[in-house]
Amino acid sequence: MSGLVVTNPPRADIGVAAQLAAHGVATVHEAQGRTGLLGSHLNPVWPGARIGGPAVTVTVAPGDNTTIAVAVEQCREGDVLVVSPTAPCDMGYFGDLLATSLQARGVLGLVIDAGVRDVADLEAMGFPVWSKCVSAEGTVKGTLGDVNVPMAIAGQIVAPGDVIVADEDGVVVVPRLDAAHVLQAAEARSKKEAASRERYAAGEISLDVNNMRPMIEAAGVRYVDHESYLKERRR
Amino acid sequence: MSGLVVTNPPRADIGVAAQLAAHGVATVHEAQGRTGLLGSHLNPVWPGARIGGPAVTVTVAPGDNTTIAVAVEQCREGDVLVVSPTAPCDMGYFGDLLATSLQARGVLGLVIDAGVRDVADLEAMGFPVWSKCVSAEGTVKGTLGDVNVPMAIAGQIVAPGDVIVADEDGVVVVPRLDAAHVLQAAEARSKKEAASRERYAAGEISLDVNNMRPMIEAAGVRYVDHESYLKERRR
Amino acid sequence: MSGLVVTNPPRADIGVAAQLAAHGVATVHEAQGRTGLLGSHLNPVWPGARIGGPAVTVTVAPGDNTTIAVAVEQCREGDVLVVSPTAPCDMGYFGDLLATSLQARGVLGLVIDAGVRDVADLEAMGFPVWSKCVSAEGTVKGTLGDVNVPMAIAGQIVAPGDVIVADEDGVVVVPRLDAAHVLQAAEARSKKEAASRERYAAGEISLDVNNMRPMIEAAGVRYVDHESYLKERRR
Amino acid sequence: MSGLVVTNPPRADIGVAAQLAAHGVATVHEAQGRTGLLGSHLNPVWPGARIGGPAVTVTVAPGDNTTIAVAVEQCREGDVLVVSPTAPCDMGYFGDLLATSLQARGVLGLVIDAGVRDVADLEAMGFPVWSKCVSAEGTVKGTLGDVNVPMAIAGQIVAPGDVIVADEDGVVVVPRLDAAHVLQAAEARSKKEAASRERYAAGEISLDVNNMRPMIEAAGVRYVDHESYLKERRR
Amino acid sequence: MSGLVVTNPPRADIGVAAQLAAHGVATVHEAQGRTGLLGSHLNPVWPGARIGGPAVTVTVAPGDNTTIAVAVEQCREGDVLVVSPTAPCDMGYFGDLLATSLQARGVLGLVIDAGVRDVADLEAMGFPVWSKCVSAEGTVKGTLGDVNVPMAIAGQIVAPGDVIVADEDGVVVVPRLDAAHVLQAAEARSKKEAASRERYAAGEISLDVNNMRPMIEAAGVRYVDHESYLKERRR
Amino acid sequence: MSGLVVTNPPRADIGVAAQLAAHGVATVHEAQGRTGLLGSHLNPVWPGARIGGPAVTVTVAPGDNTTIAVAVEQCREGDVLVVSPTAPCDMGYFGDLLATSLQARGVLGLVIDAGVRDVADLEAMGFPVWSKCVSAEGTVKGTLGDVNVPMAIAGQIVAPGDVIVADEDGVVVVPRLDAAHVLQAAEARSKKEAASRERYAAGEISLDVNNMRPMIEAAGVRYVDHESYLKERRR
Repeated sequence: MSGLVVTNPPRADIGVAAQLAAHGVATVHEAQGRTGLLGSHLNPVWPGARIGGPAVTVTVAPGDNTTIAVAVEQCREGDVLVVSPTAPCDMGYFGDLLATSLQARGVLGLVIDAGVRDVADLEAMGFPVWSKCVSAEGTVKGTLGDVNVPMAIAGQIVAPGDVIVADEDGVVVVPRLDAAHVLQAAEARSKKEAASRERYAAGEISLDVNNMRPMIEAAGVRYVDHESYLKERRR
Repeated sequence: MSGLVVTNPPRADIGVAAQLAAHGVATVHEAQGRTGLLGSHLNPVWPGARIGGPAVTVTVAPGDNTTIAVAVEQCREGDVLVVSPTAPCDMGYFGDLLATSLQARGVLGLVIDAGVRDVADLEAMGFPVWSKCVSAEGTVKGTLGDVNVPMAIAGQIVAPGDVIVADEDGVVVVPRLDAAHVLQAAEARSKKEAASRERYAAGEISLDVNNMRPMIEAAGVRYVDHESYLKERRR
Repeated sequence: MSGLVVTNPPRADIGVAAQLAAHGVATVHEAQGRTGLLGSHLNPVWPGARIGGPAVTVTVAPGDNTTIAVAVEQCREGDVLVVSPTAPCDMGYFGDLLATSLQARGVLGLVIDAGVRDVADLEAMGFPVWSKCVSAEGTVKGTLGDVNVPMAIAGQIVAPGDVIVADEDGVVVVPRLDAAHVLQAAEARSKKEAASRERYAAGEISLDVNNMRPMIEAAGVRYVDHESYLKERRR
Repeated sequence: MSGLVVTNPPRADIGVAAQLAAHGVATVHEAQGRTGLLGSHLNPVWPGARIGGPAVTVTVAPGDNTTIAVAVEQCREGDVLVVSPTAPCDMGYFGDLLATSLQARGVLGLVIDAGVRDVADLEAMGFPVWSKCVSAEGTVKGTLGDVNVPMAIAGQIVAPGDVIVADEDGVVVVPRLDAAHVLQAAEARSKKEAASRERYAAGEISLDVNNMRPMIEAAGVRYVDHESYLKERRR
Repeated sequence: MSGLVVTNPPRADIGVAAQLAAHGVATVHEAQGRTGLLGSHLNPVWPGARIGGPAVTVTVAPGDNTTIAVAVEQCREGDVLVVSPTAPCDMGYFGDLLATSLQARGVLGLVIDAGVRDVADLEAMGFPVWSKCVSAEGTVKGTLGDVNVPMAIAGQIVAPGDVIVADEDGVVVVPRLDAAHVLQAAEARSKKEAASRERYAAGEISLDVNNMRPMIEAAGVRYVDHESYLKERRR
Repeated sequence: MSGLVVTNPPRADIGVAAQLAAHGVATVHEAQGRTGLLGSHLNPVWPGARIGGPAVTVTVAPGDNTTIAVAVEQCREGDVLVVSPTAPCDMGYFGDLLATSLQARGVLGLVIDAGVRDVADLEAMGFPVWSKCVSAEGTVKGTLGDVNVPMAIAGQIVAPGDVIVADEDGVVVVPRLDAAHVLQAAEARSKKEAASRERYAAGEISLDVNNMRPMIEAAGVRYVDHESYLKERRR
């Protein structure tokens, strides 16, 4: 059942993807109703990058990176390669040679729920990678996974062409057909946050900015000065 | 039983706290008899910060950051916000908006046994955070924890007003009433370490600087040259 | 059975070790047939260092760093100190004082499957350390391990005098007697990779550079356009 | 976007599901080409159960089990409830009351990538559960997930109506439309294994039963007696 | 600051503690407002035990069980020994000899956030233990912790004399002064659950038993039949 | 460098190994100076077994169990198969067919730092296994490791012919040449423990049985009654 390579899946608009990236992972995640965040064990291997683009999805066998080589050919300018092993594996599936190849094709970066290596080179090249770990443990070749088939990665389903946004806060997936709608929500949210930020900087607090006092009242907040508290709990 | 906000607990002296911070976590931890260190899973989200100040303690419900908003109002200049969920949770309880609000009040930083987000912004703002992880997974609002009540966090009890010192080595708590005493011990230890450092740099070794040779002798150290060792173990 | 200090074990050539370091961990690991890599939980405490030198091996009791002090005396210029606790332990066995002492003796760095502290100082001093974690939790003194005896660390056997290479990708051990041979293989591999890199940068892909098409054909790769795939899977 | 409850999705045949269960998770996993296995962190809370049935899929908010209550109504005789939180959570979402309710409806068991409680009662009732952990930490109610929508759980995609097989080896998902085909392959495999088992019991070994000698020859196996090995490696 | 042994702290009533145990950990945890549950990494080393009694609290140095020996003398009939290392440690602090000693004094069981050994003997003796892991790795003696001082363990504060309830669902602490009040709440809850259980067994579901339909309505539940769902999501 | 199969290594005496097993892992570990214990993440897949025998050592490639098949041929009556992957891997390398084959040859059991499957069958057969996890995820065949070469597993070096003792407390290795000597020490220890056990059962406590009072005195133990303690710490 593996070895399937689906060619030319429809992709989310790369302009929309770039704009989603500008809002950042946290805002996009909130904007689509707190969904789509990949597990927090995926971290950037070098700091500061932020990308957004349609996913080319790849499943790989444990300890075998054959399918990544296959997937390169399916990548286009602006894509993000998204790789998940079919069983948990910490080995180093990806290094500077594959990064060179992807960069030559205009691929924006890699998200992989496994290990990568040559991280000093990856940073020097400016090729962004979000991974589970760093491992120099090389893989073998011989067993195929699938390319551009919907897959599970780090707790989410990613379908080919879905938007992947990644930055220092992590990685979020936006379903392809929802991208435009989520972008609108993200813009609204960013605007609202900018207004709130000014009020916070001026000394207002969240209880007032977000009108939370009635809610905490209802939830039963009880203010007690320290001396009374001590008397109450003394034993 | 939750929803309790204790107001105006006594706080450790912020001058003493600042001096403790200058000695650093490792020295303070040793100076108080190897106690008070929070678990090593708490790490700075950006490198280089070092803070020391009295704790405002906050317990939060899993996946719900309502109580952080409540706690902001209880914070004063020089405080450190210390947050622990009542059940383990990796979600992103805290981001740049709350940081803006705390910074406006003069709060020195945040220690949280959970996730935070907007870490690029936190670094740009210079607001230091020690957390369990980075996660863009936002929280909901609705359930209250407590503010300024003694709590367990990362293996230690932290009471409101206790000194929190945090740097690249981690986070340590010094009980409020012990702070002055621990500072004296830290000063003595730092002085002694400076003297030792010079001797090490000049080529002396720990066995002599710390007069350890009688101790290792008593413990049964046995020096064997490599050739003899091989003969002994050959099989 | 502990407390054994083996003196003057033969060491790998430090020139060869330095050249191995220049090739980096990932290349060395591949060059010796994908063996010898220490677990990916060992990470540099500060970025950018790369070292290679013969190992001085140290086993330590849990929470007790006495044997590190003993081992310092056995270290020579160009050595790498390699420390493993006899039971898993996250405490901070090593800090700036021991680093000062090792640096004064010309030791290149430390690899330890446990915690270290004073990491800001270690970076300022330029003393490289690969560790399991950072912890200010200090150790006691009183129980001896062994020095320069073959030991297990992070999934590998390291014998005294074996070459340790460490960089941002991790840590690899090369058996002393294999070092010259592995260096040749690493040189060959680096040369081949340089040639491949040029081809990748020029737009060729791995399927062609490594002549993988017959292999994936044999493994049963199947290309299907997206529309056909959807029809096939629709349900 | 959450709160969606899809009613009456087509289900795999429950007879086929029961037969798949009889073959067991390991055989089914092999029979469908080593795919579909949920992560090995899902374990039975009591030993000895084995079930197979169509999935009713449920996503739940972190720390909130509202949607499980909603899903009960969608369950039929022979179903297996499959629950995944939208962010990792170890809390106890499920206990003996919900189990009583499911058992009354003929549901075969529960698979949940989170915690459960009342495990002594679950065993006494004979209601099988595979979970990530046991936790008495109760959840709140208020936030909705989805029912009978395809979801990611423990590294796999599970769609409503897919077959779930679970036993002491773990949990595997078989896509609904593949179930009959996988059953045939499982039967063939079980038959072949039974034949092999007899040969193994009679003293034959895998190298011969599976005709592996040419393969290991080709892979470069090299037999060396112990004395020669010692001479070769002596140093 | 360690080495402190507090003698004769007031204890919760052992009759109340026993009654709390009869309700079980999950019910007690709910009854006191979802607080007090120790981390789910603490598990019984043999199945089926359930205990409740006042805590004798013990902190131990990493890898050193001296203080457990000290604490035995402070234990009375009906007590539960509660042990936490001052830094995380998986070693085997406790085995059949200490269990024999505690059993002779009428101690009900042990809760320890570290390892234990001789678990086959512990089961044969019927001495219940909840621990982080099983490890035969013995400890040394020489460094003191404290006895009967409030301490942090597995995410909770436990004070001497507080009630510890432990069963197959985990471990919960009830503050000494709250015990009688929590017992009342637990009784009410158990009664209510018994009534609910009958309704569930008779086929009613939680949405009705708990009158949740208005709540899920308000939260925006949306029922869609499978065919409509497919049309909506088709792409 | 892999594919090496060393034939006929000398083995520890199987009578001595059986006697070591009778003393159990915890006693053997203590008897050889608290060394040799494999990591506590290795657990029996079914309860109650206890074995002791000489090791046949096997390294396997990640996700590839070819070398286990090769190793079967090298096993003799009374041996214990010990398997370690060259990189961490949770897959199910071993099931009932290989167990049938080993049992037919008189092999006592398996220790593996990876996953196994068919655990219900393994228990029914009475074939004992200590593993890292249970996983139905099958492996591929094609890459060779080594047989009967010294290897690192779970933090220890195991050489072929060394004694492996395993029970419910874990797994310990005794170097072949030390086996007789360790057995003597274990016998002495068991005798001493039996005497101590009687004293504990009669109500004596460890402080007296082990004459620890002078030691804790020297370490600075301080007894304070509860009322005085409260006054001292009141704040």
